[in-house]
Amino acid sequence: MDKADTIKRLKNIEGHVRGIERMVESDAYCIDLIRQIQAVQAALGKLNASILDSHIHSCLITAVRGEDMAERERVLAEIAEVYSLAAQT
Amino acid sequence: MDKADTIKRLKNIEGHVRGIERMVESDAYCIDLIRQIQAVQAALGKLNASILDSHIHSCLITAVRGEDMAERERVLAEIAEVYSLAAQT
Amino acid sequence: MDKADTIKRLKNIEGHVRGIERMVESDAYCIDLIRQIQAVQAALGKLNASILDSHIHSCLITAVRGEDMAERERVLAEIAEVYSLAAQT
Amino acid sequence: MDKADTIKRLKNIEGHVRGIERMVESDAYCIDLIRQIQAVQAALGKLNASILDSHIHSCLITAVRGEDMAERERVLAEIAEVYSLAAQT
Repeated sequence: MDKADTIKRLKNIEGHVRGIERMVESDAYCIDLIRQIQAVQAALGKLNASILDSHIHSCLITAVRGEDMAERERVLAEIAEVYSLAAQT
Repeated sequence: MDKADTIKRLKNIEGHVRGIERMVESDAYCIDLIRQIQAVQAALGKLNASILDSHIHSCLITAVRGEDMAERERVLAEIAEVYSLAAQT
Repeated sequence: MDKADTIKRLKNIEGHVRGIERMVESDAYCIDLIRQIQAVQAALGKLNASILDSHIHSCLITAVRGEDMAERERVLAEIAEVYSLAAQT
Repeated sequence: MDKADTIKRLKNIEGHVRGIERMVESDAYCIDLIRQIQAVQAALGKLNASILDSHIHSCLITAVRGEDMAERERVLAEIAEVYSLAAQT
């Protein structure tokens, strides 16, 4: 995972959330707030996918190629779990 | 909309995002990052739904009971639009 | 709501699901099944949004312009409820 | 993947969609249609997650433990791709 890039994206998201707080303070229109929240959700979804992409290209390969069956199963079960949460929502 | 409550929830979300940044800085496990991001997405979804709830109980009632047909259509189209984005994702 | 169009879209979705059944029977590749299921989910999301759009342009207007406060609240609460489910997922 | 179970679940989903068609034909209330569509979306999400779970416990293990680098990359990229679509929606 590109640590610097991930932190940069999180800082942007944090700034976006702070911007929404200021919008609420200055009585912005509800629908404009909702649109901004939807944009933050989309940015988080992209970041999420990017972290999983790195994960399967590193930790998963190590675990699956390793000989520790319990560790392998743990890593596969985690991926199934986060996918399940994403797919059902 | 309860302004103080909305800002409080946004500040919690902002703090949550900052917590994820610290996790990345201290090399947290990818899957733990993904779980935290999913938790932030869920919190944003709840806030989103709560803002829409206030909106339809205030602005929408005013617009639909008013006599300005263009304004009414604008308000209804906005709700259809944000719902459409939510429903397809 | 355009009844004929809604039924046509549902029949397409039903056919799409039957197509996935045939894919399973002929041992299609898992990822191809997942992609088709995601396509069906997207089609249902669009249909969902289209039904809500008709609903707010008919039933909602009638309820909000009417004088029955309990009925009005019922209709608004339903919209908040289905939006909430869509937004959090 | 349990083929018989997958087909059974798809047949249930297909029957659910046909039930919604009948609801439309008999002029069911819009919100009831939306709720049924949301239920079908949830069932598809669960099936989706279940298919991915089998996939990573079979094809993925074979590909990652194998020596064909292009095949391994293909399988990992597919998982990243379907996850990305799920996470952003």
